[in-house]
Amino acid sequence: MNRCVYLDAQHTFTLVKEEIPEPGKDEVLIKIKANGICGSDITFYSEGRLGNFVVTKPYIPGHEASGVIVKVGSQVRGFSEGDHVVIEPGIPCGTCSLCRSGRYNLCSDVVFLSAPPINGTFCDYISVRSDSVHKIPNNLSFEEAAMIEPVAVAVHAVNRANFNMGDTGVVVGAGPIGLLTLQAFKAAGGGRVICVDMVEKRLELAKELGADEVYNVSKENDLKDIADVVFETAGSNKATGTLFNLARVGGSVVQVGWPESNVVPMNIADFIEKELTYLGVNRYANAYPAAIQWVSDGRINVGKIITHRFNLSQIEEAFKFAVEHFKDVVKIVVLND
Amino acid sequence: MNRCVYLDAQHTFTLVKEEIPEPGKDEVLIKIKANGICGSDITFYSEGRLGNFVVTKPYIPGHEASGVIVKVGSQVRGFSEGDHVVIEPGIPCGTCSLCRSGRYNLCSDVVFLSAPPINGTFCDYISVRSDSVHKIPNNLSFEEAAMIEPVAVAVHAVNRANFNMGDTGVVVGAGPIGLLTLQAFKAAGGGRVICVDMVEKRLELAKELGADEVYNVSKENDLKDIADVVFETAGSNKATGTLFNLARVGGSVVQVGWPESNVVPMNIADFIEKELTYLGVNRYANAYPAAIQWVSDGRINVGKIITHRFNLSQIEEAFKFAVEHFKDVVKIVVLND
Amino acid sequence: MNRCVYLDAQHTFTLVKEEIPEPGKDEVLIKIKANGICGSDITFYSEGRLGNFVVTKPYIPGHEASGVIVKVGSQVRGFSEGDHVVIEPGIPCGTCSLCRSGRYNLCSDVVFLSAPPINGTFCDYISVRSDSVHKIPNNLSFEEAAMIEPVAVAVHAVNRANFNMGDTGVVVGAGPIGLLTLQAFKAAGGGRVICVDMVEKRLELAKELGADEVYNVSKENDLKDIADVVFETAGSNKATGTLFNLARVGGSVVQVGWPESNVVPMNIADFIEKELTYLGVNRYANAYPAAIQWVSDGRINVGKIITHRFNLSQIEEAFKFAVEHFKDVVKIVVLND
Amino acid sequence: MNRCVYLDAQHTFTLVKEEIPEPGKDEVLIKIKANGICGSDITFYSEGRLGNFVVTKPYIPGHEASGVIVKVGSQVRGFSEGDHVVIEPGIPCGTCSLCRSGRYNLCSDVVFLSAPPINGTFCDYISVRSDSVHKIPNNLSFEEAAMIEPVAVAVHAVNRANFNMGDTGVVVGAGPIGLLTLQAFKAAGGGRVICVDMVEKRLELAKELGADEVYNVSKENDLKDIADVVFETAGSNKATGTLFNLARVGGSVVQVGWPESNVVPMNIADFIEKELTYLGVNRYANAYPAAIQWVSDGRINVGKIITHRFNLSQIEEAFKFAVEHFKDVVKIVVLND
Repeated sequence: MNRCVYLDAQHTFTLVKEEIPEPGKDEVLIKIKANGICGSDITFYSEGRLGNFVVTKPYIPGHEASGVIVKVGSQVRGFSEGDHVVIEPGIPCGTCSLCRSGRYNLCSDVVFLSAPPINGTFCDYISVRSDSVHKIPNNLSFEEAAMIEPVAVAVHAVNRANFNMGDTGVVVGAGPIGLLTLQAFKAAGGGRVICVDMVEKRLELAKELGADEVYNVSKENDLKDIADVVFETAGSNKATGTLFNLARVGGSVVQVGWPESNVVPMNIADFIEKELTYLGVNRYANAYPAAIQWVSDGRINVGKIITHRFNLSQIEEAFKFAVEHFKDVVKIVVLND
Repeated sequence: MNRCVYLDAQHTFTLVKEEIPEPGKDEVLIKIKANGICGSDITFYSEGRLGNFVVTKPYIPGHEASGVIVKVGSQVRGFSEGDHVVIEPGIPCGTCSLCRSGRYNLCSDVVFLSAPPINGTFCDYISVRSDSVHKIPNNLSFEEAAMIEPVAVAVHAVNRANFNMGDTGVVVGAGPIGLLTLQAFKAAGGGRVICVDMVEKRLELAKELGADEVYNVSKENDLKDIADVVFETAGSNKATGTLFNLARVGGSVVQVGWPESNVVPMNIADFIEKELTYLGVNRYANAYPAAIQWVSDGRINVGKIITHRFNLSQIEEAFKFAVEHFKDVVKIVVLND
Repeated sequence: MNRCVYLDAQHTFTLVKEEIPEPGKDEVLIKIKANGICGSDITFYSEGRLGNFVVTKPYIPGHEASGVIVKVGSQVRGFSEGDHVVIEPGIPCGTCSLCRSGRYNLCSDVVFLSAPPINGTFCDYISVRSDSVHKIPNNLSFEEAAMIEPVAVAVHAVNRANFNMGDTGVVVGAGPIGLLTLQAFKAAGGGRVICVDMVEKRLELAKELGADEVYNVSKENDLKDIADVVFETAGSNKATGTLFNLARVGGSVVQVGWPESNVVPMNIADFIEKELTYLGVNRYANAYPAAIQWVSDGRINVGKIITHRFNLSQIEEAFKFAVEHFKDVVKIVVLND
Repeated sequence: MNRCVYLDAQHTFTLVKEEIPEPGKDEVLIKIKANGICGSDITFYSEGRLGNFVVTKPYIPGHEASGVIVKVGSQVRGFSEGDHVVIEPGIPCGTCSLCRSGRYNLCSDVVFLSAPPINGTFCDYISVRSDSVHKIPNNLSFEEAAMIEPVAVAVHAVNRANFNMGDTGVVVGAGPIGLLTLQAFKAAGGGRVICVDMVEKRLELAKELGADEVYNVSKENDLKDIADVVFETAGSNKATGTLFNLARVGGSVVQVGWPESNVVPMNIADFIEKELTYLGVNRYANAYPAAIQWVSDGRINVGKIITHRFNLSQIEEAFKFAVEHFKDVVKIVVLND
């Protein structure tokens, strides 16, 4: 009755039919409708690990999910059967000093759906603590709603940035997070946005999504002092090493991507002389309300980022496709029907 | 050669032809193209005073001006003949501790163009210190550009507000400042916006300009806890007295309008219980760049706010019209040609 | 074995011996050592109500408590038997959006110990959720530690204020909260502090505790533009009505006290002209760590604020004394031994 | 009549007697009483250059000066003959967008006294624009007052840091700036402070000045996650490379020192995972008022940092001594009498 897709350390997916879980007293039971595939899911599939997380036994990947509430726990308020919802996959303790002070994304006891061995959302039904579930308006399709999780990353990146209204931004990297960050920056009051990448096609998409200027850094690599706010979303050592050059005096630099290496040489002289502010981003906190608002009022276009669709039963093809067509794929959505 | 329009204490305008002034070494000479009429100009015309400022001798009103640079002072950098510009009319000392700390709008030595006895911009030529002049893109018409000054008020109101991305706002009053504030709030990352006024026609305009919900408070007056951020732009005692009721727990309230009386009864119990933040707004500082950006990229529509146009030679008619058709006029622009 | 002091609507205290409670799995059992008497406790004693809270059946007052942990719940980490602790009496839900964003003091489901009908801390033993308990260093005496709760109010007031390092402050009211706020303001980087009150003796104490200047407003009442930050701690309509006059241009005003009336006439013209920021204070959030730090390193002297001591068995005398000697009492501590 | 000490590219000092300058209309003429020797002065002496600044012709070093006003320009307000003052040596344009927004330390046209070829303060008389001069209370000695400039660096470092009241700090480097930063951090509301250095004697001084814990990193080098706020004041590549390790989750890291190399390998993985905030510091802005306040009220002890004194006529000995006794000198003051 509840199709669950398990991934194991041998890069194999297995679809298992399980009982539909009962929601706990503070949980809601959600019928999943759509899931985005995140880069981290793909890494677990192809590498079997990511950072300190290792696939040692089969687990369910997926954490960019939308769906409908089908049952409500006894003590839950504010939700009803039939509500369209998205899941915020990091479930914090709610009581440590970081949770208490509003930075629950940094809670050391956070349970993150799909971080092995914790199961994620590539299934038909899941019960989730209701404070990690957000209602969405009915005008949002479920596949758009599945993009709310990566939009929340972009919202948090913009919240961390420290800028004046109308400031110029540059987004390094035009992958899914970059394309959402450039839109989130404008939605949050930013001014002109420059986008840089090495793939022409992605830069064209950036333009369609509102970039005022784009540069292909495989050709152009002497950019300097071009923006008040710099967002690294490429996850590249090389890009990270140039961030302080790109920023203007007094500006801020936001590290959204994870570079390949732990240690990267940084231009500290530039950093000091310009008196920059450099901000780390680790997931998001309190970002879902704005993400939902901006996607549903059209300020963030997620439709153009979804380049491919698969069904849940085709999940192995979806992951293979993602790996093999890396340059063509922006975002894949997996639909449960 | 330089037509200057003087207003005196007898409510009379006189057009005087003067020499074209030379720009000082740190000034630019601007050929004025358009001016908005501000509510304060109208008050000086009809009442002869506003706050501590009194019309004791003829002076030139006007401070919402756009134009073209025709001559550049010897030490000025960054401007050329032919540049399209707007004037920021409050010229601060630049050296006191408030100026030094970025709050130059509060400088006690600020010289404000059109605050009697200081002359304003209802003329053909004016020399202004170049740091109070801002270039505008050529895609902006001069009449749109004349709206940048009131837009800067809205930008500053939004900068003073203390809100989370996607929060809900309510704008009390749908006059020019209210209609710009509702747009600025969205441009700055706000979510849904409610607008309240007593004039149906203005509420319709608010809807056209992006209000998600409107209320006619002449009929509906039990609004409570409706928004995270509340902007008072009506300049009314009654509206001011209800602000703390309108705000949600933890929210902020921004006082943009000046109520009729100095002292207004406020609900301090609500203020404390909800732990609100209440913010005064006195003109603007560092707000022109965002105002120019948002008007020129279309996020703030000023065209719909300009309801009437006059020529400089018809200035007396323009002011009379403004007074007599108070309910129909949103904004009048006076063109120099 | 567990002496509990109940207060009823007839202003009577009854000491009842109850079973010592077992701590829940996320709770610690605390042997209470000392309690401060708060103004709100006294109001419930003398008036039988405060705001929306009414004494309808006997309940245990008290929420300024220190003690020693005697038993630790099965899932509690970070606490051991013998730890000296203080209790943060507002226990929030931990899951609503206000809790999630760090403003848990505004949680609408907060359970506040001693707000009737919830029992407080005038007893020998109490079990409390461990995330509302804070360890204190052993150099703090239990009676000093009982002052941490009111110090947290002062810390939160200072956190809400918006000031530059070295700014001048004025504290209106030299009662316990005022005397702690003046010290917290200095501890937080404030500069000179002025204190105003109507009781000479309290002003002398303010001076001993670091006030650089004091004014008796029963004699001197034309103070104006005297400080960058203004703290109202007197809870008076009259004082509240003058706050905007006291602040300097660009300053901030913090409302810590509750004026007698819900609605107070405020000088909005001053508020706008000076572009002030006015901040409500409703208890505290995330304030205990600084409160404990500053009291234990001597930056906040609480010893001089404790003017009288009683034993738990004398609690009725203590409350009577507080009411009858209102002008002489700053703070009464009730000791459990 | 005005002894001026010139330094040339051959590491030679020459004392020249010049006319006493007249103050411009917006200037005050100051009789210098004392000057601290800054590390940058010493570098210009020994290396002939620092960053982009090169000694190409003789210039007057020195920018940590105190003195007495002896003449006041015609348009200057707020100063009188006989006022004790300190000089803020970076004189900004006052009109660019960085100046206008309160970050005048980043003004690209700033004139910095003693940055060759601009003359500094090792002389008897200097005229300075009055908005770069700050009055000091008479209880401050002139040699203490000469320390206000480096204290301003510490104040700005603390202003840039992003911390909660009572947070723990670590200061890396116990030179003059480190020793002032540890005191400024406490003065600004910080909690416990750890100090690390490689010289035992400096760590002892750190303890005397309020460090709660000290580590000699020549022995102990596995420190990790020890503080909420990390200040680098050592100006060392090695120290800079460890900063992100020292900070706790959610913390901030302030770069006050300039490492030897422009490019330093940084642990970006730690930076992201802990979601740190890293802040550059380039001199100071709006920091003198707090610096003066905290030194004069005793919160910052500068007396213990002054280890040696010379007269202006002995300036060459002073610089030689500074170079030769690098490990023993914390701060040298040069007195004009």
